[in-house]
Amino acid sequence: MANSNLPKKGKPPKIAVIGGGTGSFAALSGLKKYPVSLSAIVTMMDSGGSSGKLRNELGVLPPGDIRQCLIALSTSSKLMRDLFSYRFENGNLKGHNFGNLFLSTLEKTTGSIEKAISEVGKILRINGQVVPVTFKKTDLCVELVDGKIIIGETHIDEVEKKVERARIKKAFLKPEASANPAALKTILDADLILIGPGDLYTSIIPNLLVKGVTSALKKTKAKKVYAMNLMTKYGQTTHYTALEHIFDLEKYIGKNVLDVVLINSGTPNKKALEWYDDFDEQPVKNDLKNLKNYSIVQTSLIKNIHFEKSTVDKLKRSIIRHDPDKLASAVMELL
Amino acid sequence: MANSNLPKKGKPPKIAVIGGGTGSFAALSGLKKYPVSLSAIVTMMDSGGSSGKLRNELGVLPPGDIRQCLIALSTSSKLMRDLFSYRFENGNLKGHNFGNLFLSTLEKTTGSIEKAISEVGKILRINGQVVPVTFKKTDLCVELVDGKIIIGETHIDEVEKKVERARIKKAFLKPEASANPAALKTILDADLILIGPGDLYTSIIPNLLVKGVTSALKKTKAKKVYAMNLMTKYGQTTHYTALEHIFDLEKYIGKNVLDVVLINSGTPNKKALEWYDDFDEQPVKNDLKNLKNYSIVQTSLIKNIHFEKSTVDKLKRSIIRHDPDKLASAVMELL
Repeated sequence: MANSNLPKKGKPPKIAVIGGGTGSFAALSGLKKYPVSLSAIVTMMDSGGSSGKLRNELGVLPPGDIRQCLIALSTSSKLMRDLFSYRFENGNLKGHNFGNLFLSTLEKTTGSIEKAISEVGKILRINGQVVPVTFKKTDLCVELVDGKIIIGETHIDEVEKKVERARIKKAFLKPEASANPAALKTILDADLILIGPGDLYTSIIPNLLVKGVTSALKKTKAKKVYAMNLMTKYGQTTHYTALEHIFDLEKYIGKNVLDVVLINSGTPNKKALEWYDDFDEQPVKNDLKNLKNYSIVQTSLIKNIHFEKSTVDKLKRSIIRHDPDKLASAVMELL
Repeated sequence: MANSNLPKKGKPPKIAVIGGGTGSFAALSGLKKYPVSLSAIVTMMDSGGSSGKLRNELGVLPPGDIRQCLIALSTSSKLMRDLFSYRFENGNLKGHNFGNLFLSTLEKTTGSIEKAISEVGKILRINGQVVPVTFKKTDLCVELVDGKIIIGETHIDEVEKKVERARIKKAFLKPEASANPAALKTILDADLILIGPGDLYTSIIPNLLVKGVTSALKKTKAKKVYAMNLMTKYGQTTHYTALEHIFDLEKYIGKNVLDVVLINSGTPNKKALEWYDDFDEQPVKNDLKNLKNYSIVQTSLIKNIHFEKSTVDKLKRSIIRHDPDKLASAVMELL
């Protein structure tokens, strides 16, 4: 690690997490316990569920990924965190998430998602900042190797069980989007940038497709760490090994931009694995031993979950997750 | 005024406002500017609009009247007050009010409307307290003189233009409801109780129908002031004079329980009057000169509104309202 990567003496090191969804949630939840200056750069391309409805119905930016990061960084009471995580189960509100409604309503009343984030940040007393990667309303699209084009994050993310889908050839945004200047500044100022964990095509790459992001990543003196996925994701990284993850990532971030690849060495719960296997999803095979130019850090990063069958059914495929504390500890070692 | 009514030296006088809706909003907005200890006792029988939907869909208590009182008592930024007043205009959320969603979601996550009020009160930094008159899920019903029974506040409140409706014979709750002990304590401890302003049958009387409320009103040493309506309300007080308001009120509160009747002497805007007249609603005629036992205070209480035709169309019949400052000033004179 070059000296320039070292945080300035006396100032807390600046860590930026790039991603979205539950992966960023885990990383931020763990890292917030350390004396670091924490930022979350989040994808703004969500088009499904509660976020998708709010996008369509209110004409706002999708709030879901922002909300998860805000809750992860919250130091307020469990009650407030529960409130912001609450999902309505009945009637017209069914499927809507309260935190999403809060952010979107504030965006409507203030006219700005930045002000909305700032206000919710105060209420949740967040320790850190949440930075949308762009303010442009745009959709994530992928072209498959069979020529088919899929438009919209949710259509890329959700594949019906065992419906065949060709490998992804390339991802792009429609329309093109320029970066939020604050996101670029965060990247340039950081001491360490954690890319992931998160679904490769729906949480990580959307950030890299935003104009300005990859050049900032090339320019910054921050140490760039990629947190490898624990499991393959059916329809976007079906049967991918770790190397295939890196190859796809390099198409967007460029070669030799990363410094470290952080990969799990722990073994997931057997029952949970059966559940995943039913969706043709498996642990990502570690074939990084021949990968040059990057440091490879292997350590157990899996969250131990004690569960019943009913828990598995409820949590579905998100049950094998990064452990916030193990992940944060591994990241802090790299500073 | 008996000496016992006088506030204790050095302590701010305790004022309780009984009602709901826009009338309580006006009273609280004006009174919060004075050094008084302010409480709002609010009706919990709303069954229409956003509150009604939340009642049905989430199984919560109706939040609408509570929300209006919380916003009235708020000392937080305009932004937060705007947020809590925001009404969705599109999609599945159409007609829902954000503040209502907030209260109902908190009630779901905490299991208690009291905790929900307390949390929202902190966020809105309220100066005072908001006290639901009951926690019982109950409906307001009226029996008309033609024997017809109407169940549900919204069906009593909303009458189609010029649809004939017989005079109300009596109001009752179904099922019966006992008072929130905090509401009774507030009544007993108050130095002055302002009943109204508000629609007689849908904002005032529902509070008096709750078991324990009228006995507390008879027992308290507080000065009891009734703020007379400015306009008649089609379908509940059609063509009522001021005396008819008092007679109906006395059926529930009892005779000689009130101390003061506060009645407007100002003249509403002519254009607005035409609009109201189209709904067969007129200024309440002051025929209180023969009313014994109560002090009658007459003063201008009307809010001056400069408006265009479009404004009238938008605001509809709520455009002729009590002026918060004039109302509060008149109430403070009575302490």
